[in-house]
Parts: sequence; C-alpha cells; structure tokens
Amino acid sequence: MQLMRLGRPGAERPVVRLDENRYADVSGVVRDFDGAFFDDGGLDSLPDIVTAAPVHEFGDERVGPPIARPHQILCIGLNYSDHAAETGAAVPAEPILFTKSPNTLVGPRDGIRQPRGSTKLDWEVELGIVIGKRASYLDDHAAARDAIAGWVLVNDVSEREFQIERSGQWSKGKSAETFNPAGPVLVTADELSDVSALDMWLDVNGERRQTGTTATMVFDPYEIVRYLSQFMVLEPGDLINTGTPPGVGMGMKPPVYLKPGDVVTLGIAGLGEQRSEVLPPR
Amino acid sequence: MQLMRLGRPGAERPVVRLDENRYADVSGVVRDFDGAFFDDGGLDSLPDIVTAAPVHEFGDERVGPPIARPHQILCIGLNYSDHAAETGAAVPAEPILFTKSPNTLVGPRDGIRQPRGSTKLDWEVELGIVIGKRASYLDDHAAARDAIAGWVLVNDVSEREFQIERSGQWSKGKSAETFNPAGPVLVTADELSDVSALDMWLDVNGERRQTGTTATMVFDPYEIVRYLSQFMVLEPGDLINTGTPPGVGMGMKPPVYLKPGDVVTLGIAGLGEQRSEVLPPR
Repeated sequence: MQLMRLGRPGAERPVVRLDENRYADVSGVVRDFDGAFFDDGGLDSLPDIVTAAPVHEFGDERVGPPIARPHQILCIGLNYSDHAAETGAAVPAEPILFTKSPNTLVGPRDGIRQPRGSTKLDWEVELGIVIGKRASYLDDHAAARDAIAGWVLVNDVSEREFQIERSGQWSKGKSAETFNPAGPVLVTADELSDVSALDMWLDVNGERRQTGTTATMVFDPYEIVRYLSQFMVLEPGDLINTGTPPGVGMGMKPPVYLKPGDVVTLGIAGLGEQRSEVLPPR
Repeated sequence: MQLMRLGRPGAERPVVRLDENRYADVSGVVRDFDGAFFDDGGLDSLPDIVTAAPVHEFGDERVGPPIARPHQILCIGLNYSDHAAETGAAVPAEPILFTKSPNTLVGPRDGIRQPRGSTKLDWEVELGIVIGKRASYLDDHAAARDAIAGWVLVNDVSEREFQIERSGQWSKGKSAETFNPAGPVLVTADELSDVSALDMWLDVNGERRQTGTTATMVFDPYEIVRYLSQFMVLEPGDLINTGTPPGVGMGMKPPVYLKPGDVVTLGIAGLGEQRSEVLPPR
C-alpha cells in the first residue's frame, strides 16, 4: 500500500493512493498515520478499510508528509562509502547517529526555508525508514525487518556552517523549520520488500547533483534498526533517515549551496518524487 | 506555582502542589501539562482552576515527570566552566547542542535502567528549562524570558562509552530508556524568577559527588533559549537541559561509574530532590 496525507499543514487527512489518479479517503476510520495507528496494527486492518472507503481523484490539494509528526527523527551520517569519501571522512566503523527536531517534517512540495544567517544550505536525498513497532534490543535483522512499517523519500536538508562550524554536534545544522521534506508516499514494507538496490537522484535547478543507489550503503536499513535499538527505544511512527549518496553541495569543488529561488527535485525508484523551492529567510 | 503529575506511567494526572502535604487535583479541567496546555495559556488560567479544584493529601502514589513527554529534549554540553575543565574540554565559544530521545523522560524516583552492555553509566545534575511559547528567532533575553514556562530538576543520565567511543555524536549515549529523570516539580517562572545562583548537588550512595551552583554557567538560560531559537523552532512543553557542574563519574581519577543497586540522590535549591536506584539491564 501507499499511504499519503492530504490537506493543509496540521490538518492533513490520511488517504491511500490507489494509482496515479485516484486515492481512497480513509479519514472516516483512521484518525492519522501516527504512532498510535502503527502501534495498534493499523496497517493490518487498512486493506479492509480501503475497500469500504470513498474513492476520489487527486486534485490540486496540498500533499503533506505521509506520516504525522514522529516522536523522533533519527539520522545516520556518512552511510554511503562514496559520500564519506567526498566529505573527506573515513567510512565509520559503526553507524553514526544524529537527530533532527521532529517539527522539521514537511510535505514533498512545501518549500525549504533558508534560515536567517545561512550561507551553506545543502541537500541530501535519502531513504527514510518508518518504524512500525516498539523496538528495543532487537536480536537480528529478521526482528528489525518485522519492526519496519515502510519506506519514504526524504531530503535531509542541512546547513553546513551551523552543522560543522558552530561548536560541536551536527543537530544544530539539521533542525531548522522545513528541513525534513518527506513523501509523497509511505510505501509499506510488504509492497516494497527489497530496498537493497534502489536508484536515487537529486537535481538543483534541473542539473543533476546526486546519483546513487542504496546498494552502496555501508549499513543497510535492517542493521541500522537493529543497531539503534541497542541504544534507545524506537517507537511506532519514528522516522530514520539512512544517509545520502555522493553529490552534496559541500562536496563540490568549489562547494555550491542553495539560495532562495533554487528548485530542488529528487526521487527514489518506487517512492515518488519531491519538488522543493528554496524560500527566503523569514 | 508548582506543577506535578501523579499516577502510573502513561496515566499521570496533572496536579498543583500546595505545600509539603497537599495538592490541588486539576485533572478535572486540565488534560495534561503538555504542549497544548502551555500553548493555550494554561498557566494563566491555572490559579483560578486551582481555587476550585479538590484538595488532597499526598499519599504513596507514584510521582511522574511534571510535564508530559515533550516534542524534543535539547541539551547543552560543557556549560559549566569547571565541568568543562574536568572533562579536559575547552570552554565552548557557543552553546554545544545535543539531544535526547523524548521517551527517556521518567519520574524523579522511577529508577535508572542500566543499558545492556553498559560499563560507563554516569550522572549529571542539571537545571531544566520548560518552554512555554513557540520560540523562533528570539531577539533578546527579554523575549527568551517570556518564552520560558518554568524550571525543573533533571538528571542527564549518560553512557560515556556509547556517547564518546562508539562513532561520533553524543546522542547515542544519552537516549536509553529512563535516561532523563525529571521533577518532582515544575516551578513556574513567576514563582522562581531568579535562577542565577541556585545551589545544586548530587550524591551516589550517600557520598557527595557534585556540588555546584548555576552561577558558574557559561551561557545562562536566557542566552540558551535565545541562541537555540536561531537554529530551530522551540515548542511549548519542550525541555532543555542546561548542562552540569563538576563531579561527574567520568571526571574522577580513576573514573567511577554507576552499577545496579547504586542510589543516586540529587537536588537543586527550590526545585526539590530526586532519588533513583540503578536497575540492572532488562
């Protein structure tokens, strides 16, 4: 299944995408695609709900992120061997964890707001994992697979000066508003069971900047979920951004960063596409 | 006012502490001390609610954290000049931000669960800030003061190997379950308007380990809130741990860490005391 949320920010309705033109509006039965939904086995009952739900054609309604604001957004750094090389960093021995504020989550066409004082605004196309079950001390990759609800396209927007040059710890450059465009769809793990070689790309103003495949990940999604569950409790609805392939602005020679008016388009095979315009600071 | 939450985990009732023996049960009117409560001006209407609320004596009911699970838990690192010295780090030029998973929040007597594989479990008594209003790009300390709902005693529990020796970024050693005991009370900013010189202490098994005062903070709470609001949007109910004075286990020679059965007691003048037993790994 492909889950979406339609409507204005903060008032999105949960729907299920049926095909390019149509969706089933499940909002009469499902309150939201949030932690409680996943925790209560909502994905298991969703097919029956879809069968009985009203079907509509997509209009020009806003597409929101396909999940409600999660309890936490976790991110893995330097998780593509070729991206680690372009940033001058060694391939890590263990997954590098950092976090984003949950209120960075926005829809796939909402725009990226340049923070005040930002001069190094950067892009990162990534495969996002949505957690489906409370996960703590998972034993193996099979248990991790069982804890994953599905997959989502994300842009792990970054401000490199804030991240790297403003006193320790990356979260400072990862948490500005609009810094986590997600969607358009959450594709459930039963529908997309093999994410080991998904093509991914990102353009800025129509020029290709990132070209990659999940096949060059250092730590695959199951290892990431198993690993993180040793350090913290993952909750249903949590989002994990799994790292980016080469081609970020910081890695170009000379570096190239985003400015207001730029248009970032990105996609992962099977997970749809995003189009974000860069907005001037508030 | 002094806000508390009583009852079993996940089912706490909001109450207001009247004195050592009695509280007003405001749960008939207030759903919870959560983001919505602070955002809706709940603190302003609380005095009238208290006047009409039933009064009870404290029994042996569990004391929960005084706020509901926040949208985010932000932490400031190395924010006491003398603590920076004991860890061998320079005093930072700007506040160092890291994060904890929001589901680390527990009550002041709930116990600290040693993570599996942990050998370097450490303590940090800290002054916590609870945000009262959405805060973005605050202009000055007056605006920051206006955005603060109140203060809470927290223990920023840390696993030093996970934090420092397991590949980059501190969050990995800050986010295990039970790693953020908070409370017993949230003291509102109108009641405790001056936090510039609060005595703070922490004992392990009755031996004094930390002795400090907020007077030696590098960045005071108003600067922290103003500063963080330049990088992210702070939301009502968010919790900010403001750093710890000297005396953590990592700084002792040789280092001393917590083990199951240890009892950690801590306090800050005016904010009450905590007593946490260290529990064995699950």
